[in-house]
Amino acid sequence: MSPWKAAQIGDHFDQIDTPALILDLDAFERNIKRLQDAMSGTDVRLRPHAKSHKCPDIALRQIKEGAIGICCQKVSEAAVFVAAGVPDILITNQVVGEKKVAHALDLAQRARIGILIDHEDQVSAFARASANRKIKIDVYIEIDVGMGRCGVASIEQAVELARQIDQAPYLNFMGLQCYHGSAQHYRLPEERQSAIAAVCAKASATKEAIEQLGIKVERISGAGTGSVMLERDSKIFNEVQAGSYIFMDRDYAANQRDGNDLHFEHALFIKTAVLSHPTQDRAVVDAGLKASSVDSGMPAVWQRQDASYLKASDEHGVLKLTAGSSLKLGDSLMLVPGHCDPTVNLYDEIVCVRDDRVEAVWPILARGAIL
Amino acid sequence: MSPWKAAQIGDHFDQIDTPALILDLDAFERNIKRLQDAMSGTDVRLRPHAKSHKCPDIALRQIKEGAIGICCQKVSEAAVFVAAGVPDILITNQVVGEKKVAHALDLAQRARIGILIDHEDQVSAFARASANRKIKIDVYIEIDVGMGRCGVASIEQAVELARQIDQAPYLNFMGLQCYHGSAQHYRLPEERQSAIAAVCAKASATKEAIEQLGIKVERISGAGTGSVMLERDSKIFNEVQAGSYIFMDRDYAANQRDGNDLHFEHALFIKTAVLSHPTQDRAVVDAGLKASSVDSGMPAVWQRQDASYLKASDEHGVLKLTAGSSLKLGDSLMLVPGHCDPTVNLYDEIVCVRDDRVEAVWPILARGAIL
Repeated sequence: MSPWKAAQIGDHFDQIDTPALILDLDAFERNIKRLQDAMSGTDVRLRPHAKSHKCPDIALRQIKEGAIGICCQKVSEAAVFVAAGVPDILITNQVVGEKKVAHALDLAQRARIGILIDHEDQVSAFARASANRKIKIDVYIEIDVGMGRCGVASIEQAVELARQIDQAPYLNFMGLQCYHGSAQHYRLPEERQSAIAAVCAKASATKEAIEQLGIKVERISGAGTGSVMLERDSKIFNEVQAGSYIFMDRDYAANQRDGNDLHFEHALFIKTAVLSHPTQDRAVVDAGLKASSVDSGMPAVWQRQDASYLKASDEHGVLKLTAGSSLKLGDSLMLVPGHCDPTVNLYDEIVCVRDDRVEAVWPILARGAIL
Repeated sequence: MSPWKAAQIGDHFDQIDTPALILDLDAFERNIKRLQDAMSGTDVRLRPHAKSHKCPDIALRQIKEGAIGICCQKVSEAAVFVAAGVPDILITNQVVGEKKVAHALDLAQRARIGILIDHEDQVSAFARASANRKIKIDVYIEIDVGMGRCGVASIEQAVELARQIDQAPYLNFMGLQCYHGSAQHYRLPEERQSAIAAVCAKASATKEAIEQLGIKVERISGAGTGSVMLERDSKIFNEVQAGSYIFMDRDYAANQRDGNDLHFEHALFIKTAVLSHPTQDRAVVDAGLKASSVDSGMPAVWQRQDASYLKASDEHGVLKLTAGSSLKLGDSLMLVPGHCDPTVNLYDEIVCVRDDRVEAVWPILARGAIL
């Protein structure tokens, strides 16, 4: 990592070195409150996804504001949050392999931990290891609700896994993971509605079939920032896992809004500066692929009409300028990343700004925790 | 970062946790030797680019094998290598802003440091700061040789900058940076030949025009893995900056080879494991966007005919399997990243393997050094 920091607490915004990951604290706090408020008075719990921020300071803030716990995507990621004092984590992923199973059980001795299962070999691995060590762990069955990634394809498979889990004394069957990742990014509200309606139908039918065995399905969990109000109002889901809502990114902002959607604000930016201005219509900034993930497209230039981000190489971003652009060598500007999660994962720290002052610098402690 | 490591020295390959960044030491050493041998007997120096590996262990190995020094892309990246004992670094980028200029001069007190310039404001900033602190620094003019990123557009501008640099007592004008990044990835040998021929023509004409002022152009530096033999044989370049040759990636391997091209082997891999196998034709591995950068396309599955990598999300890679694939839950496989540089930048360590044993684990000390 860099031997020096982009910013110190108390710095003026203009003093922040570039490129730097910036959090607009006012917008961030409004985003947290908006989603938490939307859950109040319902029986739907908020368990925000921490893969978006990988930052214990943010997780603890979300919990303080009413979140029941967090989601993580990796065992090593969860370990960072357990060490920071987060008491309740659902690892929304299949945990496979002897080492990973052992690490998950280690964590389950120190916090409430849940994991996903979609294969009988996983049930037997966890059943055996948890019984040997006499450690209880929560288990959710993931069902494929339409995104074609993980999860059992059929209701019959889910029922069979529930039966097996129920027989394992140290596996605490909790319910179903029903996350439709691609639906989060469908552009039209009616596309998202129709996808989530299908998710709910499958979740509901699976729950019913499992409960016919006399096995209680206590929890149906899922949803992301693009669809969270649909799951909230579904009467099927009782837990939601949105993560990006705290930051927003260019991709999520491109979704057309339904009348019931919450308005989340852009709170995450990359401060960058012009390092070359070789022609009137071209400038080059110091934030490229290693400062902003381009998997969901190029970042957007924030609140400037005279520049657009054309292409990225490792350490360069090429801007196309309009005629008469006032941008000069050394000028700084803000970018909105195309995809917040992998962008945050590039940085060691997030510089938190309010009223043009650096109020805090939060370490992204789970950056790179992919095991 | 992860609280535990993917591997320890002495581990068998099968014990390496996933996902992990793997270096095949035999292939890596052959790659280093191949390019170094290709330079011997010529007056072309090798200054490999360290943005590909960000790893002092690798830089010091390259220098031991004959490299004159390294290139870096950022001042903070260079600082990591100076601290590790690398004596000669060219920062192949414009260094803009008071803080960055000061940091570059700090480094120039401890090692031979070069920087690029393509704007008169940069000349004056460096001229002033270097004179104030009485610190000499090497300066190269970057010329745009066809990629449309940084660099002066015209010979006249280059001549004017050379004149200004020459007048600054602490700026040591060294020569020209003539790098055509996009040409590295042109698929056909004749496309690369024609692009580099144009690069050489412009470099040569610029050198001549500057030397007419009585200012010596000592060094013409540039080239990447896709074109390095063309610059070597150009009689114009006397320094080359290839970086990816030590690793290779899917994108570089897709270039068709000329008869004179060197054969570099894949030495960089991601070890990943199957965490879900929900249908006969689909498996999901634990290496997604945060384990392999997809800016230049999806990773390739290494030496398996029964699986191809279809799409990536944050922590998942979806594989399409052929009928009869033998891949099972928990099986591991190797991926060749689409683009090595930003992939390496996702990891804290590179696990070095020979004969199925972990021989070393090298820290990627400059990971995240983007300031």
